[in-house]
Amino acid sequence: MAVNRTYLDWNATAPLGAPARAAMMEALLLPGNASSVHGEGRAARTAVDKARRQVAALVGAEPVHVTFTSGATEAANHVLTPEFRMGRAPLKVSRLYVSAIEHPSIREGGRFDPADVTEVAVTSDGVVDLAALETMLAAHDRSAGMPMVAVMLVNNETGIIQPVEEAAALVHAHGGLMVVDAVQAADRVSVDIAALDADFLIVSSHKIGGPKGVGALVSRGEVLMPKPLIRGGGQEKGHRSGTENFHAVVGFGAAAEAALHEFGDRNGRIAALRDRLEVGMRERASDVMIHGENVARVANTSFFTLPGLKSETGQIAFDLEGVALSSGSACSSGKVGESHVLTAMGRDPKLGALRISLGPETTEDDIDRALAAFGKIAGRRKLTGEAA
Amino acid sequence: MAVNRTYLDWNATAPLGAPARAAMMEALLLPGNASSVHGEGRAARTAVDKARRQVAALVGAEPVHVTFTSGATEAANHVLTPEFRMGRAPLKVSRLYVSAIEHPSIREGGRFDPADVTEVAVTSDGVVDLAALETMLAAHDRSAGMPMVAVMLVNNETGIIQPVEEAAALVHAHGGLMVVDAVQAADRVSVDIAALDADFLIVSSHKIGGPKGVGALVSRGEVLMPKPLIRGGGQEKGHRSGTENFHAVVGFGAAAEAALHEFGDRNGRIAALRDRLEVGMRERASDVMIHGENVARVANTSFFTLPGLKSETGQIAFDLEGVALSSGSACSSGKVGESHVLTAMGRDPKLGALRISLGPETTEDDIDRALAAFGKIAGRRKLTGEAA
Repeated sequence: MAVNRTYLDWNATAPLGAPARAAMMEALLLPGNASSVHGEGRAARTAVDKARRQVAALVGAEPVHVTFTSGATEAANHVLTPEFRMGRAPLKVSRLYVSAIEHPSIREGGRFDPADVTEVAVTSDGVVDLAALETMLAAHDRSAGMPMVAVMLVNNETGIIQPVEEAAALVHAHGGLMVVDAVQAADRVSVDIAALDADFLIVSSHKIGGPKGVGALVSRGEVLMPKPLIRGGGQEKGHRSGTENFHAVVGFGAAAEAALHEFGDRNGRIAALRDRLEVGMRERASDVMIHGENVARVANTSFFTLPGLKSETGQIAFDLEGVALSSGSACSSGKVGESHVLTAMGRDPKLGALRISLGPETTEDDIDRALAAFGKIAGRRKLTGEAA
Repeated sequence: MAVNRTYLDWNATAPLGAPARAAMMEALLLPGNASSVHGEGRAARTAVDKARRQVAALVGAEPVHVTFTSGATEAANHVLTPEFRMGRAPLKVSRLYVSAIEHPSIREGGRFDPADVTEVAVTSDGVVDLAALETMLAAHDRSAGMPMVAVMLVNNETGIIQPVEEAAALVHAHGGLMVVDAVQAADRVSVDIAALDADFLIVSSHKIGGPKGVGALVSRGEVLMPKPLIRGGGQEKGHRSGTENFHAVVGFGAAAEAALHEFGDRNGRIAALRDRLEVGMRERASDVMIHGENVARVANTSFFTLPGLKSETGQIAFDLEGVALSSGSACSSGKVGESHVLTAMGRDPKLGALRISLGPETTEDDIDRALAAFGKIAGRRKLTGEAA
């Protein structure tokens, strides 16, 4: 990778941060298996326990309520299941309600039959429609089982903050379970599982500067838990079997601690950079549309449409200028599809849209280079009357 | 960890080897998400593809048939399911037959209902009883669905090599699917999915010198595949969603390549060390029982009983002498239980047993220290007439 590349795709993945890297380097020297009882095993166990406390602190949870998984997608498949247990008694969830702008790992519905998954609309502002949710919950047949609702705290494409507290109040008033995908929120807004009144939170390491391959399902208590997705040796108190991925867990913990410690500084600086970016884009193309600019957004994300520039064309054009950005989410193995988020907001997804997302290591220079590329691409578009 | 510790618990986990460490250090500098289309994403994708070729080569498979997972336990839960697809057509597996000495991640039966899992006995020599398997397969009701059989290639506690080829021939003669847990085999015996005639192989990175948190389900073809366990963004051709854990995958690939390249050297040297260990143990305690010594075993494992020494007491005594070994498998979060493998072999599991397992970095000094500790512990046992 050439030195002068500008990486502005932090919502897809954050480069491994210095705190996580340092913690992992140290952990890589420990030979043990965290489930072994000898000294090496106990040292690995101690490192895992520390990380559990660090991740818990980031989301206001008890360490004992953090179940480490291989990532947010696994955590989603773990918690999105009709089969729960209240202690040893089975508990049935009969229907899953997911907002129309959830990440594919949530929209796919985990272990629910597709027929038992209902989509909740969002408003044209890109915010979950609470009135629509309430109507659905009021119509839910509780004799068949509980309702479960999944709403993300921050949308990955737009950065729009969702009304999770209000949604949770509705869900609990109707005797349901509230699942919150906090993957894009965990170092961008203050997250507290109790304040949100969520029953379960999903977090991911690699979106906050930790390594890939690790995430967590955070629960509100210990009694009400989903049927395990991955069974075997009984690790993670039986909730998630498999040798603890302790190098990655340690990196996740260090990233969580850094995110919490630097929260205000990071986000203040990132907000200033993002604001300068958006002012600069508008100066260079007055017709640029910035999605979600009139509602609460996190500080690091700018999702925009430059009329006449298709998503794929735009992404390649920026890549050739040395700027890595995205046309939305990075899943589905490199597929550049239409944005289901824009569609859900009632926009024509054929318009095309690009996402610039910043991180704690983004510099003024990165913004300068992004704006220079933006100016060139927007200018070419004007000259030819369409996509560069 | 003091410098003079002797780590002889390689079957629980291998310390990260130099090739994996070097590859990971390099990969940690790449910022991308392997599913992003920009330059950074493509570089990550290239690294993942290389690792896929390296892992495939270790087990004689096509790279396209390697599905990366978060580890062997996830791979087991992925493949052990009643719901398969032949292309787009559903295919039903009605019963899972697992040998009595399988790892807990297999014995738990994955997504099968426990009532649909049948145990296959082993002989007193610790080898799967093929006659018992044949009787079961002959009695299998194929009108309900196909049979699936899971037999490990190398047992994790005893190191005994199992008759997988013969089992696969029986399974295929009865129209079934053959799943082989090759976790403890992958760098200890030559593994070739076609020669074994397995339909699926399970491999783990951290048992062969790669990082924890990654493994693979290797299939024989592309058409017959299990229903995905983890759904979402559609990575791994839709078989396993979730951002590719590319640092770990790269480490796994490098470890696989090293294991293949150094195969003969490694195992020759390890066999000599293990033989010296066993001769030395017998010199110091003529009543030591070495399990599986009369059948084919891998070169690195010695599973023994010292009469009068309980498993837990023995493990602690060795740990205090600076030697990390195990009383069997390291799962279940530090639980020291009775060995289900010894029980399956018809031995009294209360006898106690300890496992010493060697790796490519094990030295003559390690064996000397293990024998010195063994001599002391065996001597104390003789003085007191029971456990030290």
